[in-house]
Amino acid sequence: MSYRAPVAEAVFFLEHCTSLKRLAGQGALAEFSADLVGSVLEQAGKFAGEVLAPLNRSGDQEGAHFANGKVTMPKGYPEAYRAWAAAGWSAVTAPPEWGGQGLPVALNAPCIEFWNSANMAFAVGPLVSMAAIDAFHAHGSDELKRLYLEKIITGEWLATMQLTEPQAGSDLALLRTRATRGPDGTYRLKGTKIFITYGEHDLTSNIVHFVLARLPDAPPGTKGISLFLVPKFMVKPDGSLGARNDLRCASIEHKMGIHASPTCVMNYGDNEGATGFLIGEENKGLACMFAMMNNARLAVGLQGVGIAERAAQQALNFARERRQGRALGATDGASTIIAHPDVKRMLITMRALTNAARAICLKNADALDRTKHLEDEGERWIAHEEANLLTPVSKAFSTDVGIEVTSLCIQVHGGMGYIEETGAAQLYRDARIAAIYEGTNGIQAIDLVTRKIGQSSGKALERMLAGYRDTAHRLATMKEPAFGPISLRLKEAIDALERASAHLAGKLAKAPNEALAGATPYLRLFGLAAGGAYLGETALAAKVAMIAGDADPAHPARIATARFFAENIMPASAGLERVVVDGAGSVMHSDQVLSA
Amino acid sequence: MSYRAPVAEAVFFLEHCTSLKRLAGQGALAEFSADLVGSVLEQAGKFAGEVLAPLNRSGDQEGAHFANGKVTMPKGYPEAYRAWAAAGWSAVTAPPEWGGQGLPVALNAPCIEFWNSANMAFAVGPLVSMAAIDAFHAHGSDELKRLYLEKIITGEWLATMQLTEPQAGSDLALLRTRATRGPDGTYRLKGTKIFITYGEHDLTSNIVHFVLARLPDAPPGTKGISLFLVPKFMVKPDGSLGARNDLRCASIEHKMGIHASPTCVMNYGDNEGATGFLIGEENKGLACMFAMMNNARLAVGLQGVGIAERAAQQALNFARERRQGRALGATDGASTIIAHPDVKRMLITMRALTNAARAICLKNADALDRTKHLEDEGERWIAHEEANLLTPVSKAFSTDVGIEVTSLCIQVHGGMGYIEETGAAQLYRDARIAAIYEGTNGIQAIDLVTRKIGQSSGKALERMLAGYRDTAHRLATMKEPAFGPISLRLKEAIDALERASAHLAGKLAKAPNEALAGATPYLRLFGLAAGGAYLGETALAAKVAMIAGDADPAHPARIATARFFAENIMPASAGLERVVVDGAGSVMHSDQVLSA
Repeated sequence: MSYRAPVAEAVFFLEHCTSLKRLAGQGALAEFSADLVGSVLEQAGKFAGEVLAPLNRSGDQEGAHFANGKVTMPKGYPEAYRAWAAAGWSAVTAPPEWGGQGLPVALNAPCIEFWNSANMAFAVGPLVSMAAIDAFHAHGSDELKRLYLEKIITGEWLATMQLTEPQAGSDLALLRTRATRGPDGTYRLKGTKIFITYGEHDLTSNIVHFVLARLPDAPPGTKGISLFLVPKFMVKPDGSLGARNDLRCASIEHKMGIHASPTCVMNYGDNEGATGFLIGEENKGLACMFAMMNNARLAVGLQGVGIAERAAQQALNFARERRQGRALGATDGASTIIAHPDVKRMLITMRALTNAARAICLKNADALDRTKHLEDEGERWIAHEEANLLTPVSKAFSTDVGIEVTSLCIQVHGGMGYIEETGAAQLYRDARIAAIYEGTNGIQAIDLVTRKIGQSSGKALERMLAGYRDTAHRLATMKEPAFGPISLRLKEAIDALERASAHLAGKLAKAPNEALAGATPYLRLFGLAAGGAYLGETALAAKVAMIAGDADPAHPARIATARFFAENIMPASAGLERVVVDGAGSVMHSDQVLSA
Repeated sequence: MSYRAPVAEAVFFLEHCTSLKRLAGQGALAEFSADLVGSVLEQAGKFAGEVLAPLNRSGDQEGAHFANGKVTMPKGYPEAYRAWAAAGWSAVTAPPEWGGQGLPVALNAPCIEFWNSANMAFAVGPLVSMAAIDAFHAHGSDELKRLYLEKIITGEWLATMQLTEPQAGSDLALLRTRATRGPDGTYRLKGTKIFITYGEHDLTSNIVHFVLARLPDAPPGTKGISLFLVPKFMVKPDGSLGARNDLRCASIEHKMGIHASPTCVMNYGDNEGATGFLIGEENKGLACMFAMMNNARLAVGLQGVGIAERAAQQALNFARERRQGRALGATDGASTIIAHPDVKRMLITMRALTNAARAICLKNADALDRTKHLEDEGERWIAHEEANLLTPVSKAFSTDVGIEVTSLCIQVHGGMGYIEETGAAQLYRDARIAAIYEGTNGIQAIDLVTRKIGQSSGKALERMLAGYRDTAHRLATMKEPAFGPISLRLKEAIDALERASAHLAGKLAKAPNEALAGATPYLRLFGLAAGGAYLGETALAAKVAMIAGDADPAHPARIATARFFAENIMPASAGLERVVVDGAGSVMHSDQVLSA
């Protein structure tokens, strides 16, 4: 059950396959040196492994506890949280003018992965708070920021995001929580929110809720939604805590996993109404949310990577110890199961899927950094579109990978994987939520198809595919036996993705429902091509290092991982293209199946 | 959460796509009429829905309870079990000379599906007992049968199968439980068994354990294993219960799912040794086990079908009620989510996978019946080989489908799917075990590749593929617009399967590890081709009925399901072939990935 953060892997990718070195030392990153990356990630990995990981199983067993409106976190969580915040992990990417460190998203991304590998139920609370920082910083007034932002950034207080209501999940147009204008410029909120992550807990002295609500005269639908800051305790001008606000946690959910994460029903306005402060403009609340959406979705993708990494490690450790059956060619007694080809396939599949998902997320993080830090406006726009394209893929592909890899972890363990004591079952239970929250994976696929691949009339996608083709070309021209097959399969996947994209573009104009019906297999296809291309880049960088005389055994492993992915995962591409192109019609013409 | 057994679907398949009508009224089935099928399945479905299903969630919450060597089943389970046994469901296929009904496996198969849809944790106990009947009947002495078999068949007592030990899971060669010969022809057993399903409980007055153990002078490995009947209470010659035997349940496991099923650690011989009676010959215990293996593996496959069916129903019911988002073309307010193409894809995928898995299992059941009941010895042999081929596919493909479909059920529910109250999470947790027990799905794939596809020098597989090609041909020649695409995709899948099979046959001779490394994707490919062919048969039968004027809306649904499967599930075939052929090499040459 021990967890070792894959620091070297993240550092290698950041150094060789992202712009981090290029961005370091310039503009807002003037004081950032890429040489720092390794030591920062070492510290993060150490904290994750030593402080958070040991609380993962006990937190699962104990769970968050609710009584009389209060939530008690599992033993050790408050101390761990305070240590985490004190070390500054909450502030990595936050704005320096409010106490943040202003470091690259690509540096924070592996940290987020590590927290989630170690303890997903712990990590999800801070993740939400970090996302809230983005929206708050972009749209809050200076007066509000002065009172609240710095304390959220330092982690003294945690923030929440409150969108969902019983009738309004994926469809925010349906939300009903009401906000009325008070005489003093503040607002009074009444309503009920559900599925609120860390809506109540005993980790921090105050909790700052960001709540979507509707004004009495608001237009219907999503154009009538406003965003409010609603503190648990009012804050006095000197920063000290004042009266309890009129809101409470009514209950917490009994979930399949992430038991230590309190998922709250929140009631606003039992009495006079909860006091809220407008963020941004009235009726523009959703636009404020968009300021945090890319980062939040990437963070959930990293949860998928994190839980997959943990599962891959655990399965490998088990397979190295467990003896069953004599492998072909072995001479004496039972072999460790790692020697059996079918187990080996599972273990390498876990590693390849995990690394591919990580590569996609780190490329996404890098695109967000370039969007912010590049000097040239045109380049920034290109990076922005790239981040837009990658975000739904990071979120959905990686969280699907989280499910697949944790399932394989159970399978490698055999019967022991089904026993809770082993820990594999918890990973499987925890992983499942990430495909649902922060926009279901279906919503991500629809976002990709309807809003992302058509950016700049398809030019953004073209650029990305051209980059993938360039990688395939470089692989084909470098002398390394493994690169031929990688290049071949990568080209096939890119071709399939390109044709499927063109098909969807046509369908969007003429039969949009058929485009929507192809969205999920299309996103998977995108993930395979992107993952293959980025693992290919990693393999190229590894080969270059080997040619330069670097004997690190991780280099041949990187090449072998890329090859395995190409030969065992990417061949699904052609079938996915067929499903997008031919299958969507039978989705839309099969109503008999569901009415019979 | 209500469950409606798919009686009409099972009856249609049994009538039109199996030999049931041909076998009825002949030989041992002289008194069986195919007209009975509908009413038997109606009763089974009613019992499952009315008695077992209501206990599913309470059983999950309450769990089996262990204290002081005793296991208390959840509330309502003893009554439900007694009603189930009293109705004769334990005896459907059991030998008539010992009180069984001697009915076809194909009739029992839908019943098994229904029990598992309603309550998998309940069903698994009786399933093990039914499997034990097969082994006992084939190899037990008449004296033992007289005392024990009839009471197991009537369900008055339940039987267990005890193979696993801590160091011996998939690898039975490692088992250590010792049996020594007593002076009276009985044996004394000492040792520990784990993961024993229903090893102890309060459903029946006695429990009859079938235990694998090793004699002191036994040869090492699997050739030194003997099978013993070890009753919980000794049975006197008059059938009444005597002394408690020297065995006890030491604890039960805390599992991820099937909480109501007690999974026991069993200790034998704390004192003088548990008294056991030899079944079959000394050191031939594994051969006795083989007598029950095909049926037991099919039964676990049916667990996959059952849990998938339940999940498909629950997701569909939810999607018909839940309103979120306005579908394209809808005019007013939020649509029920069934109208959204991506949700529709999930729902039809669930239905198509479930029906394909059921079709494979029912074909497998039919092959077992033909093995037993056909008059011609040559035909019986052909049926036997067919059953052998289909068994690992039934088990592994169907239980994988159980996992996939229960995962989609959660996804359709969105956030609510992750809350235990909804019931979707339980289905997902319960489903996971079926891919592990009764031979992991990896073991099934290896069985298929190493022992089944080579039967009669490949002739058995050739015959099966020829049958699938015949279906593709019939589809191509019948006038129905949907049949063209079904036939096309089916042919592609059969071609891919045929080439992959030839490749594996070659590898088995020259590089067997590479054949083993391709086993899991090969089994999936086999499942896609078989499922597609059998859904194609169903579609053909539906079309024939429609031409004859039958306006049952289930017929066009059958055609649409087959088409959806062909266009959205089967296109994975080509990629799977590539993985079997090209990918296995990189499995075996990627050790760097796992050692880095």
